[in-house]
Amino acid sequence: MEVDSPRSYYEGDRTMKARQNGIVQPLLTDLYQITMAYAYWKAEKIKDHAIFDLFFRKSPFQGEFTIFAGLEECLKFLQNFHYSDSDIEYLRTTLPSSIEPDFYHYLRHLTAKDVKVYAVEEGSVVFPRIPLLRVEGPLIVVQLLETTMLTLVNYASLMATNAARYRIAAGKQMTLLEFGLRRAQGPDGGLSASKYAYIGGFDGTSNVLAGKLFNIPVRGTHAHSYITSFTDFAELRTTKLKDCSSGQEVDLVVQCQEYREQLSHLLLNTDPNEASNGELAAMISFAIAFPQGFMALVDTYDVLRSGLLNFCAVALALNSLGYKAIGIRIDSGDLAYLSCKAREFFEIVAARYNLPWFAKLTIVASNDINEDTILSLNEQGHKIDCFGIGTHLVTCQRQPALGCVYKMVEINNKPKIKLSQDVAKVTMPGRKNVFRLYSADGHALIDLLQRSDEPEPKVGEKVLCRHPFQESKRAYVVPSRVEPLYKLYWSDGKLTAPLPDLQQVRQRVQDSLKTLRQDHKRNLNPTPYKVSVSKDLYSFMHDLWLQSAPIGELS
Amino acid sequence: MEVDSPRSYYEGDRTMKARQNGIVQPLLTDLYQITMAYAYWKAEKIKDHAIFDLFFRKSPFQGEFTIFAGLEECLKFLQNFHYSDSDIEYLRTTLPSSIEPDFYHYLRHLTAKDVKVYAVEEGSVVFPRIPLLRVEGPLIVVQLLETTMLTLVNYASLMATNAARYRIAAGKQMTLLEFGLRRAQGPDGGLSASKYAYIGGFDGTSNVLAGKLFNIPVRGTHAHSYITSFTDFAELRTTKLKDCSSGQEVDLVVQCQEYREQLSHLLLNTDPNEASNGELAAMISFAIAFPQGFMALVDTYDVLRSGLLNFCAVALALNSLGYKAIGIRIDSGDLAYLSCKAREFFEIVAARYNLPWFAKLTIVASNDINEDTILSLNEQGHKIDCFGIGTHLVTCQRQPALGCVYKMVEINNKPKIKLSQDVAKVTMPGRKNVFRLYSADGHALIDLLQRSDEPEPKVGEKVLCRHPFQESKRAYVVPSRVEPLYKLYWSDGKLTAPLPDLQQVRQRVQDSLKTLRQDHKRNLNPTPYKVSVSKDLYSFMHDLWLQSAPIGELS
Repeated sequence: MEVDSPRSYYEGDRTMKARQNGIVQPLLTDLYQITMAYAYWKAEKIKDHAIFDLFFRKSPFQGEFTIFAGLEECLKFLQNFHYSDSDIEYLRTTLPSSIEPDFYHYLRHLTAKDVKVYAVEEGSVVFPRIPLLRVEGPLIVVQLLETTMLTLVNYASLMATNAARYRIAAGKQMTLLEFGLRRAQGPDGGLSASKYAYIGGFDGTSNVLAGKLFNIPVRGTHAHSYITSFTDFAELRTTKLKDCSSGQEVDLVVQCQEYREQLSHLLLNTDPNEASNGELAAMISFAIAFPQGFMALVDTYDVLRSGLLNFCAVALALNSLGYKAIGIRIDSGDLAYLSCKAREFFEIVAARYNLPWFAKLTIVASNDINEDTILSLNEQGHKIDCFGIGTHLVTCQRQPALGCVYKMVEINNKPKIKLSQDVAKVTMPGRKNVFRLYSADGHALIDLLQRSDEPEPKVGEKVLCRHPFQESKRAYVVPSRVEPLYKLYWSDGKLTAPLPDLQQVRQRVQDSLKTLRQDHKRNLNPTPYKVSVSKDLYSFMHDLWLQSAPIGELS
Repeated sequence: MEVDSPRSYYEGDRTMKARQNGIVQPLLTDLYQITMAYAYWKAEKIKDHAIFDLFFRKSPFQGEFTIFAGLEECLKFLQNFHYSDSDIEYLRTTLPSSIEPDFYHYLRHLTAKDVKVYAVEEGSVVFPRIPLLRVEGPLIVVQLLETTMLTLVNYASLMATNAARYRIAAGKQMTLLEFGLRRAQGPDGGLSASKYAYIGGFDGTSNVLAGKLFNIPVRGTHAHSYITSFTDFAELRTTKLKDCSSGQEVDLVVQCQEYREQLSHLLLNTDPNEASNGELAAMISFAIAFPQGFMALVDTYDVLRSGLLNFCAVALALNSLGYKAIGIRIDSGDLAYLSCKAREFFEIVAARYNLPWFAKLTIVASNDINEDTILSLNEQGHKIDCFGIGTHLVTCQRQPALGCVYKMVEINNKPKIKLSQDVAKVTMPGRKNVFRLYSADGHALIDLLQRSDEPEPKVGEKVLCRHPFQESKRAYVVPSRVEPLYKLYWSDGKLTAPLPDLQQVRQRVQDSLKTLRQDHKRNLNPTPYKVSVSKDLYSFMHDLWLQSAPIGELS
């Protein structure tokens, strides 16, 4: 069997833009896309032209905003879109034998060159019913793109939104690190989580591959197992560290024990007998390995009676040799209380040894943290500088899926509407544009969907914005700024707009969130942001609705 | 910059065993594993030998059992474990510049050849605190494996367990299909979901790539958009289908309209005016494409007044040409009621046209189904033959992460215990073996952890099984069968036991579940299965506990 033409996949050169995971390929789709493609082909619909909207109906996490992400991945997917010989071979042996061979020939030569993609900029704040992507092109091709596009947008947007919510809860000053790889849904779930957490507003990740592929800052110190792997000083095969200025080698063990003796009286008013020697030995060995970046986990045995004492002893010994420690990590217990006690210890040491920087050592907390924990810690008061967040962040525990859908809105220039008993599920027919209207103070007021042939709303001119379903809900808006939300990103088989890099998308998230009023962003009972339709679109949609809906019979 | 030596990644040859996703590589880990490795290296601990246990503390989904999965992926990871030049280059530019160059040389040549892995067979039912893998080897290497192994086991086991629970809820006769790709957490989240849903007891997937890579049956028909893309018969460019026996081409439109006329009187006692012509046209075109496998979505407009009527008309027309339709899919509404009505219609048609098979047409349901929906449908009564399940299954909405951990239990022949305020978090020290003891009726009675140098429990001989933490809970067990749960899978850089294929793992799940008493498996308040320790292990653990725990002071 032939070898596939090389597909791009994650490899190792971080100077290049990271390429796409090899499993993102046209067969990463639902079978029904391919059976539909055959049925369309067989029905001689290969020249039919369709428009699909990709959108969601409800923002996640009981919130009222969503961050749109995954666009770059969708565009890379379009760039690489083709069925390989082995794909065709697989389909040939899997689909019914009645399928005509010419169909496989057709499929083998299919590309996305006749597709056009309009999309909202990646990293933008978006709202229910706004099409994030408008995909136009040959019916068969645009239908074949559905599942993969949804896969690429759904989790990316969910994750970026989750991260942005944590950032809002934690505030701008807090350092946020993503630590979720081990609990993520699959290896790529972990990698995507690291990437989209960064885009959503996190400062770094523990995931080294994400660092390598996306140039995201990576962070990490050691685990409890590092501490427990040492029992006593006797296990230390190296105990010496060079003094920064004199270059002389000094025995850290002796120094640390002396400092610990002093500190146990100063901080705990007791003898240092309860502090673990294994823990101190582990910290010493770690300090010898990373004298310039010493950061230690302090909760292996007892934060107050052992971990903090040992850490401060090592930090003071390092200081005497000209090195500044970084801080501590607490991974269990009452984080509010322990962080306050740690800060108190650091301040006492800073005063006693006249080392003002010691009072400002970093305190990282990392045990089972979620958005609510952060809000609750804020209320209680704490002295944490950095959260390391895993499971809740990466699995989006509060709502593990975003429900983006991909709906046909036009075929061969005829608009399509999908009706539903549930009004919220009725689709908006036809080719549409979207504008965001801003108030004079720079806040986003309302999003407006129009038919694509309507003139754009103008700054300073009154626009009628209608609720898409409720007749009586209408408002005149005089925008101070009008932002067209769509850009054409893909046409004639090529990217047609420059793609921002990761940093720019990350910045876009914060800029875009800034335009959103606080009450839309708050955690508890946020105000829904308004998404409206133009007068024309309203009539167009409701006329079509009446035409399409059967008149019921009560009996 | 050099190109990496080729890593295995998903490619296209399904005759080969599917290889591993290229992103599963040593850098898919937490940074602290690498900083710890350096600290160990710097502390001259490269010859230290450690044992780690990989286990979880609580079964997911408020259940009392878990299916262990992900082992094969872990072993493939070991086979490929090495840092490439570009990995080293990335680390060199990312880690502190104080790191000694020799460390990178050491890392560059590291492999998993000195590691030994004992594990429970993939697909087995497992319980809290049982080490699923026991990983032995050089401290640095076994520590470096942690995050990736956890990533590979956590979601795989969670997903397989979820699927197994759906299977139990749905019963043996039900066909279960996984439809979750579009809502999964990342592309690989989708692919892993398809694979482990199949292992857990599903019958197939909509995910074509999963079909190609793992040889899992794929299934699918068409979406609502297929139906709505047709408005009327006039759009059908082909309307003819060959009669199976005569070979004569027959116009399906005329036939279907005639049958629909008859059926609307028969089934609805009304004129067929309310049924959608667009829907019928779409179904006719689909039947022309798939005359031998006709299956149609019937809820685009109205299940009873349009979808079912149109489906039955097409199915009868196909029958008159010698083709047997397969069935319908319902994707919205009251699934219990609609499935019963559909079955009723099928039975009426079967009787009227004397086609007994028509009464047995397949009814697939696929709207937002989860374990509770299935149980509730069972209570209400329904006529569904097959569930297509997406979001809830693949994201494990009820609990989106399994909390496997990886804990050091021995270093340089010294046992290690990790203490915790929370007794359930105390680790079991030392090198251990695990046995499952069975009763005479074939049911699993209890799992028994022993120190690895204890003699195995014997059939027919009394064994004392102790609760690991509660002194008073003890029981004598006389096993009718003793199953050692561990096998050595990896040693000297090679696989040391044959790996079962996907079908065998899938079979193992059902066989293993069969040995579990019903009350452990039930959905509501299941009975916890007992995991015990031997008398020796109990003393060994509690002695070490007392030695390690500081005596507190009340003040």
